Amino acid sequence: MIFKELPAFAKLIDQLRRIPYLASKNVFKVATHFLSSDENEVARLVQVIEYARKQVKKCSRCTGWTESVGPCVICRDPGRDAGTVCVVETWHDMLSIERSGNYRGQYHVLGAVLCPLEGVGPEHLSIHPLIGRLESEPVTEVIFATNPTPEGEATASYIASKIQNKSIKTSRLASGIPIGSTLEFMDRMTIHKALSGRQTF
Amino acid sequence: MIFKELPAFAKLIDQLRRIPYLASKNVFKVATHFLSSDENEVARLVQVIEYARKQVKKCSRCTGWTESVGPCVICRDPGRDAGTVCVVETWHDMLSIERSGNYRGQYHVLGAVLCPLEGVGPEHLSIHPLIGRLESEPVTEVIFATNPTPEGEATASYIASKIQNKSIKTSRLASGIPIGSTLEFMDRMTIHKALSGRQTF
Repeated sequence: MIFKELPAFAKLIDQLRRIPYLASKNVFKVATHFLSSDENEVARLVQVIEYARKQVKKCSRCTGWTESVGPCVICRDPGRDAGTVCVVETWHDMLSIERSGNYRGQYHVLGAVLCPLEGVGPEHLSIHPLIGRLESEPVTEVIFATNPTPEGEATASYIASKIQNKSIKTSRLASGIPIGSTLEFMDRMTIHKALSGRQTF
Repeated sequence: MIFKELPAFAKLIDQLRRIPYLASKNVFKVATHFLSSDENEVARLVQVIEYARKQVKKCSRCTGWTESVGPCVICRDPGRDAGTVCVVETWHDMLSIERSGNYRGQYHVLGAVLCPLEGVGPEHLSIHPLIGRLESEPVTEVIFATNPTPEGEATASYIASKIQNKSIKTSRLASGIPIGSTLEFMDRMTIHKALSGRQTF
């Protein structure tokens, strides 16, 4: 009833709902922000989105974001080990691994994970370019750093099955208790994984 | 290091961080959405923001959102009890109360809560218009429906103190155990409030 009287507001809400990861409870707060903030604020957002869309491209090698011509800053770093490729879901996951500080190999960004229920198949991920890289580059190990979710695990297994006859070592990030956490707050599956993946001193 | 090579991307992230309630972890996902979605999607967002900014105004009476000239649809409804005013923090909170289904009085939207640490004082809230309404309209009860947070409580107390000599009844939403929840998951303060606010059968 109220929204019938507020067609422009309703349209704004509908459009904001299309932005992923914006919690539905917060859509109203973001709409209020856009309605209340000054003209320049909105103009600036539009401007930076358009500028970024013009400048930012996908790296020709790892498919992560870059603003340079050709490969990105990590791909063209001669100090990094070209023999190891860490496969991540998103460019943001790559940043997380970079922040951990001692990985010195290369990356490959899939862009998504397999999710048949939402219609995301292998053709929507950059799997083909990865296989191309493994054929043309001197890669000896592929580390799967997809998330330990059903979709992340399935994606890693799928790609691993595609490359199993290439005599490339494949590995998976360890699952276990996060540092700083305690056993009592861990779920059964995590404890099971931590036990089965136990490390000798 | 990576962001030095991605100045347009970094600017987009900076601008997105200015949108409130967008979790910092999700800023990268939203940036990726804006970079990957097609041209029309971005154009449409810009268009609906601009259209909404032109159409949507604050109601001259309750300061909630409206697209009509003069008071909003609730304020001009003759079937609603003009003697009761429910004071809420945001227009969205008003919608929540409307959805509960049996409140038939009027509203007043404050727009925010007092928060001296963030520089939000009484002059930033629509307290003055509320006091004006209480002087010119036949209001007999003000129901404070600000959230049970320290800021919400302080804001309600502040306004209540300003209107205490107007012989208007003031009340506060009850605090207690939400329907469907259980005692074992409630904090001490909620149980204390539920006990002290107990209702006779």
